[in-house]
Amino acid sequence: MKIKTILFTAILFCNPIFGQVGIEKWKIFEIKLNGPSKGNPFVEVQLNGTFIAGNDTITVPGFYDGNGIYKIRFMPQKEGKWLYTTTSNVKNLTNIKGYFTCTAALKGNHGPVGVKETYYFAYADGTPHTSFGTTCYGWVHQGDSMANLTLQTLSEGYFNKMRMCIFPKSYDWNHNEPLLYPFEGTAPKNWDYSRLNPAFFRNIEKRIGQLDSLGIQADLIVFHPYDSWGFSSLDRKTEDLYINYIIARFAAYKNVWWSMANEYDFMKDKKLSDWDYYIEQFAKKDKFHHLIGIHNGSRIYDHTNPYITHASIQGEDTYRAKEYRMKYKKPVVFDECRYEGNIPWSWGNLTPQSMIEKFWRGFLNGGYVGHGETYVTENPIKLPEVSSDILWWSKGGTLKGESPKRIKFLRQIIESAPAYSKPLNLFTWMPFPSFGIDKEYYLGYLNDAQPRSVVIDLPKDSQYSVEIIDTWNMTITPVSQKFSGHCIIELPGKPYIAIRIIKQK
Amino acid sequence: MKIKTILFTAILFCNPIFGQVGIEKWKIFEIKLNGPSKGNPFVEVQLNGTFIAGNDTITVPGFYDGNGIYKIRFMPQKEGKWLYTTTSNVKNLTNIKGYFTCTAALKGNHGPVGVKETYYFAYADGTPHTSFGTTCYGWVHQGDSMANLTLQTLSEGYFNKMRMCIFPKSYDWNHNEPLLYPFEGTAPKNWDYSRLNPAFFRNIEKRIGQLDSLGIQADLIVFHPYDSWGFSSLDRKTEDLYINYIIARFAAYKNVWWSMANEYDFMKDKKLSDWDYYIEQFAKKDKFHHLIGIHNGSRIYDHTNPYITHASIQGEDTYRAKEYRMKYKKPVVFDECRYEGNIPWSWGNLTPQSMIEKFWRGFLNGGYVGHGETYVTENPIKLPEVSSDILWWSKGGTLKGESPKRIKFLRQIIESAPAYSKPLNLFTWMPFPSFGIDKEYYLGYLNDAQPRSVVIDLPKDSQYSVEIIDTWNMTITPVSQKFSGHCIIELPGKPYIAIRIIKQK
Repeated sequence: MKIKTILFTAILFCNPIFGQVGIEKWKIFEIKLNGPSKGNPFVEVQLNGTFIAGNDTITVPGFYDGNGIYKIRFMPQKEGKWLYTTTSNVKNLTNIKGYFTCTAALKGNHGPVGVKETYYFAYADGTPHTSFGTTCYGWVHQGDSMANLTLQTLSEGYFNKMRMCIFPKSYDWNHNEPLLYPFEGTAPKNWDYSRLNPAFFRNIEKRIGQLDSLGIQADLIVFHPYDSWGFSSLDRKTEDLYINYIIARFAAYKNVWWSMANEYDFMKDKKLSDWDYYIEQFAKKDKFHHLIGIHNGSRIYDHTNPYITHASIQGEDTYRAKEYRMKYKKPVVFDECRYEGNIPWSWGNLTPQSMIEKFWRGFLNGGYVGHGETYVTENPIKLPEVSSDILWWSKGGTLKGESPKRIKFLRQIIESAPAYSKPLNLFTWMPFPSFGIDKEYYLGYLNDAQPRSVVIDLPKDSQYSVEIIDTWNMTITPVSQKFSGHCIIELPGKPYIAIRIIKQK
Repeated sequence: MKIKTILFTAILFCNPIFGQVGIEKWKIFEIKLNGPSKGNPFVEVQLNGTFIAGNDTITVPGFYDGNGIYKIRFMPQKEGKWLYTTTSNVKNLTNIKGYFTCTAALKGNHGPVGVKETYYFAYADGTPHTSFGTTCYGWVHQGDSMANLTLQTLSEGYFNKMRMCIFPKSYDWNHNEPLLYPFEGTAPKNWDYSRLNPAFFRNIEKRIGQLDSLGIQADLIVFHPYDSWGFSSLDRKTEDLYINYIIARFAAYKNVWWSMANEYDFMKDKKLSDWDYYIEQFAKKDKFHHLIGIHNGSRIYDHTNPYITHASIQGEDTYRAKEYRMKYKKPVVFDECRYEGNIPWSWGNLTPQSMIEKFWRGFLNGGYVGHGETYVTENPIKLPEVSSDILWWSKGGTLKGESPKRIKFLRQIIESAPAYSKPLNLFTWMPFPSFGIDKEYYLGYLNDAQPRSVVIDLPKDSQYSVEIIDTWNMTITPVSQKFSGHCIIELPGKPYIAIRIIKQK
């Protein structure tokens, strides 16, 4: 009977089923098992899956998905046959064996993003990833119709990363209750912290998957301070339950990034050692080794912590990317440099011109920059605490700003530049950034200055083509003359101009 | 015969003559004497004048003005009868006595500018002075026609301070030779450093006087690094000769400020102790106690030096005025925050929008900000080292920019604000500056942000009028509603907006 039960379980619940061929590399192989629904499965049932291919042995945790259903998710990172075995303290769930075959990744599937060449990101297949993020903290908590609108907007291809909170958000312009809650119980604060709500997490992973299908990284914010339910001040036991659960559920999604916090230093109940603890949990328990970051309020975290993979920074001086590269020896992502918008709070009333300037300065100083948008439209205007305006930064929906299409323009330029271009000093002692490959390719940016010319010293032994890029009007104009040595290049004499200089073969 | 000679000298050369009544307070009383022209009068003749009125005894140096003419200049700062006596190592010049009567200052004559209330400037008669400077480093060295054009431009009333070099300047867009040289000899470097050229200094004081008649302070730069003649690396003996000479000649001009240097730290031949020495010389030898500052290149001077009267700062972050006030406990003057213009060098290609923003942010953070302009117009464009374009910043002439009239607009607003308004926190935790008198008067500025509203907390027990100021379009629009307590004020949702809030009586 035992064999039969196992076979039955595997056939019925494994999806893809027992021995199925053709799990694409970096996609999810999921084992679905039937187990106990009585007691408290979240804390009483231990379940793991061990996956073996050649010399690789990887054990990942399973999780309880409600209604007596248990799942183990695995992201194969190597082609070929993978054997697996489950272990559990529940008889029905243990020692279940099977295998699947991991097939080659199809076009468009580059695998998860990791760090490459110290300061850069690349997908697992080696394709460079230049991070162009945006932010909709609470988009997964607003229901299908708003989420679908958000996804439709994202399909325009402005961005390839989404910063989003796992826990619901309570803040100006977002005082409505969320679609679902992460724990069993009733709002505002009557929760059974020993029982998670699978529907809540199922909704989130659905959105993660939808982002993945759009080629967008899901930068999942584990903790944040914008709270009216108590989720910002859990006890350690509950935190562990939650952390283990999201690792078990979400880590097999190839587009997941872990962000420990938004504005970690604004969470007054947590100490620095708490953050170090969380970081270590993810570093050790996520067997797929997704990127790990932590975002600051007013005090930048010590990103030299070796478990932190990249410096996630809130700061409006994106030109400091170069300095942070040197300091942390990691990729530098300005996840928040203020938002394009018109709200009274200073972090949300950038002009689109300023936003675009911050993007260019950040990228050409060797960093990555993220977007957010905060436009109110109500008439007459209302105080933030009572307004029901829908702001992209919080709920998603549609974009109203002028920066996204110009970010896309920049993205095309950056993605067509040589991979691993680095900050250069095309303008010698001046604060105008440039990056590229020395003597081969230069992309320079004149910030919001309005020079009618630049004076530069190109190598004397080569000829260079020059293009004038109007980053605001999104035009690229080649200069007919070729340049070499000490030269003056005429510019339009207005702000937001870039120049691209390429060696002639 | 001795008495007769003295009387003759005094009658003939004193201008105003011996015993003349009616020297207006803070204007120049000058004694003109005939003395030796042989040998080297610059180093061999000592001459002083001692002026006595009541308990005040002030001894000032005289100077040699060439052709056997010696002068002693004195600025009376107290009304009534002043007696004087000369002392000299030359018989003809010593023990000459006389008197004059100092009369009340006429309208428009407020006396020299000094420090008041720690962080502010005021004229000697108590009238507040809000410094709105500009910069034409070499304007006195370009000849009459250019100087007259500069004065005509200045008569438009944009500015009330001029930063100007005493020594001629050699730099990009200014490689022509000056009108005159400060020492006897021939260019480029064949100078008799023991003999000054009175005509050179006469030309400068003529310009100082012309500025004074326009109500403009002459911020005289004693040393600077833009040199092709050797004047940036004089020996100490020559420096002393020069310093003593300019104090003797210029200090009686009520509108003189002493600026030890432009970009002191770019003068590689000078040590920090040299600068301390110069500062002390002016502090001790100028008996009229004009303001003393020192302007930096990349490293700000230690303005805590007690002889320094105000912090003269080059730096583009004018909002840091508030911080420097705290640090130095002195008035803070951003004498250089980059210039409006279109040259390739980053210090000279600000948009007028940025320049105006820097002015507003500087003033509302409790500082003063200075202007400069660097527009090239040549077609085709030429390298800076060979261009013959005339740039306001270097030679004066006419202004081409868009910022001066907006600086004048700001000046009118600042001068109509309560005297000694100080930085406030109208916008609480946000980086938008405000200044005024708490609960009475607020002037706030939203930088280049584009909020559609501000949320502020005014005192609940009063009503406040609000005006929306468009600092770029130079409009002031009253809001019909009155405000009180926690309130939201609607704004145009575009950058460069200020608000003025005044308590209703």
